[in-house]
Amino acid sequence: MTTQTRPAPPWQVDRWFNTSDAITLESLRGKVVVLEAFQMLCPGCVSHGLPQAARVHATFPDDQVAVIGLHTVFEHHDAMTPVSLQAFLREYRIGFPVGVDRPGTHGPIPQTMQAYAMRGTPTLTLIDAQGRIRHQHFGQVSDLVLGAQIAALVHEAQAGPRADGEQSRTVAGESCGPEGCALPA
Amino acid sequence: MTTQTRPAPPWQVDRWFNTSDAITLESLRGKVVVLEAFQMLCPGCVSHGLPQAARVHATFPDDQVAVIGLHTVFEHHDAMTPVSLQAFLREYRIGFPVGVDRPGTHGPIPQTMQAYAMRGTPTLTLIDAQGRIRHQHFGQVSDLVLGAQIAALVHEAQAGPRADGEQSRTVAGESCGPEGCALPA
Amino acid sequence: MTTQTRPAPPWQVDRWFNTSDAITLESLRGKVVVLEAFQMLCPGCVSHGLPQAARVHATFPDDQVAVIGLHTVFEHHDAMTPVSLQAFLREYRIGFPVGVDRPGTHGPIPQTMQAYAMRGTPTLTLIDAQGRIRHQHFGQVSDLVLGAQIAALVHEAQAGPRADGEQSRTVAGESCGPEGCALPA
Amino acid sequence: MTTQTRPAPPWQVDRWFNTSDAITLESLRGKVVVLEAFQMLCPGCVSHGLPQAARVHATFPDDQVAVIGLHTVFEHHDAMTPVSLQAFLREYRIGFPVGVDRPGTHGPIPQTMQAYAMRGTPTLTLIDAQGRIRHQHFGQVSDLVLGAQIAALVHEAQAGPRADGEQSRTVAGESCGPEGCALPA
Repeated sequence: MTTQTRPAPPWQVDRWFNTSDAITLESLRGKVVVLEAFQMLCPGCVSHGLPQAARVHATFPDDQVAVIGLHTVFEHHDAMTPVSLQAFLREYRIGFPVGVDRPGTHGPIPQTMQAYAMRGTPTLTLIDAQGRIRHQHFGQVSDLVLGAQIAALVHEAQAGPRADGEQSRTVAGESCGPEGCALPA
Repeated sequence: MTTQTRPAPPWQVDRWFNTSDAITLESLRGKVVVLEAFQMLCPGCVSHGLPQAARVHATFPDDQVAVIGLHTVFEHHDAMTPVSLQAFLREYRIGFPVGVDRPGTHGPIPQTMQAYAMRGTPTLTLIDAQGRIRHQHFGQVSDLVLGAQIAALVHEAQAGPRADGEQSRTVAGESCGPEGCALPA
Repeated sequence: MTTQTRPAPPWQVDRWFNTSDAITLESLRGKVVVLEAFQMLCPGCVSHGLPQAARVHATFPDDQVAVIGLHTVFEHHDAMTPVSLQAFLREYRIGFPVGVDRPGTHGPIPQTMQAYAMRGTPTLTLIDAQGRIRHQHFGQVSDLVLGAQIAALVHEAQAGPRADGEQSRTVAGESCGPEGCALPA
Repeated sequence: MTTQTRPAPPWQVDRWFNTSDAITLESLRGKVVVLEAFQMLCPGCVSHGLPQAARVHATFPDDQVAVIGLHTVFEHHDAMTPVSLQAFLREYRIGFPVGVDRPGTHGPIPQTMQAYAMRGTPTLTLIDAQGRIRHQHFGQVSDLVLGAQIAALVHEAQAGPRADGEQSRTVAGESCGPEGCALPA
């Protein structure tokens, strides 16, 4: 956990699913944003991260909370192409918008994932209504904690601006485990 | 769900467990109170209600949120005596304070349960820092929703008073089912 | 695990539930018997042992496999009386016959539990069609293993007698934990 | 469920994973064979079918029971190529041999899937030690039932040959649901 609050970097996305238009962070200003970074072949993403994002999507009003998926492939790139992702989203009935993170130019880690300093998948990033990163969870976070963090940001958005924040990080696993897939150290 | 907000009635408790002193609502003023009404032989209380209350107790700081159990026996009174309850609390490792609701004078429903107009067990009642009932869930409520409701009341308590509220009710089951035990209609 | 096979001791039961007549091991000769020893306030019995016994009861034909519960109270005797047990069986919808193990004369451990050398609850004992103890599991045993053991005994009963057996024991927990409640060492 | 017993058709497999040599049914004669047909993007296969096959693999001795996966892609063929399957098997830590069913010549259904008259994925087929289909489960089958069926076939293999069998079928779902993916009717 760090106490730093910083502007959320823009999303480098080449292709979107489940939306007719590209989505920018700016277009979501005024809403709390739940950004779920995942890989379709990451077991922890399939069993925990994505179902949780879907629950958030079903629980909170669309005009207050936006749930956005980000496909951040950092391994097995040939196995997780947009064609495979499209079938995956359909079979798993993922209904919220999902962007494909742009491949990195100097290594396996895609650009948005790197800009957000994510450590693996799944990573859930909470962005406030002013576009600032407020919480970041790698691995699992409980629904109680997540519900409370979202509500606090929604409440804050309705009450007015805030000066500083805090950034939490869940302890990382190692490589791909039941919790998720970690970037190489 | 109703939009009514009303003062939480006082607790009619003859005996307390897991606390050296009797607890009153007044003594908790300034904190958000999670009141978990249960019966020790109610399957839905054992599988869902009490574990959720324990998660709330473990997640939120004690100086902001108080978790209180209330043993509201409305059936099988001979089977759920304080002696049995004490063993139950020990075996299930319930660590938060639990009060025994005072038996009703005109029927099987105990007094606090009746004053709160509960419809069965488990019932989770959220009381704000000013001692008003704000939400009431009979049966199951998701951790996401509960976390958000608690956080909103905590935020409100820190920001100052509020004029009105809303009261929600989860749809009732019938008799004792996996969800919980309903009062006779 | 031991390789010993021995005659299953008779059941010392004062009171039966879910059956109009007392049940003896002799009356079940020819059937495989699944004896589920439990305490109503043992968390591992409620979450694992009894639901598994109910699944066995629902899965195998009554004329091949008999499922019998045995309430073996070795702690909190005042909290788990027959009156409480009766309400418990009703609320948890336990449909198979359940006997109350006769209290011990020299200590807290009831007589049948002692005769079977059980180490705590839940303990599942598999008795073959000839009335011999063949497997004994303290704590959890997987449905795959249990299904296979039952089927092997059923098959054997249909094929004819067998000379010797094996007795397995699941590793014990300590005191009451999520797995079950162990007898004092 | 049907009472028919028939020889299990040979496997039409172009490529194997988790084994250095191709595997034929003949080479497994004398063992009970658990054939788990799945698609890597079938949610019911990932959540239920494959974990169950892994439990069988971990529970029964290799010299008595062989667990074999079969990747039977009948939809989204471009999304579930061998390259994707290889990454999937690695990330999900599937340790038993998996063959890729040969594409059909007259439609989307691969050849082995068609020869076995499977109705969708996951389908678990139990083949006895003499190479005959004895049970076939589409969708979910409980561990208790599966454990019993495997044990009965193992017992039979050790006791000697048998004349006829039975074939059961679990009721089908429709399209891809939490249970599995059904073939078009």
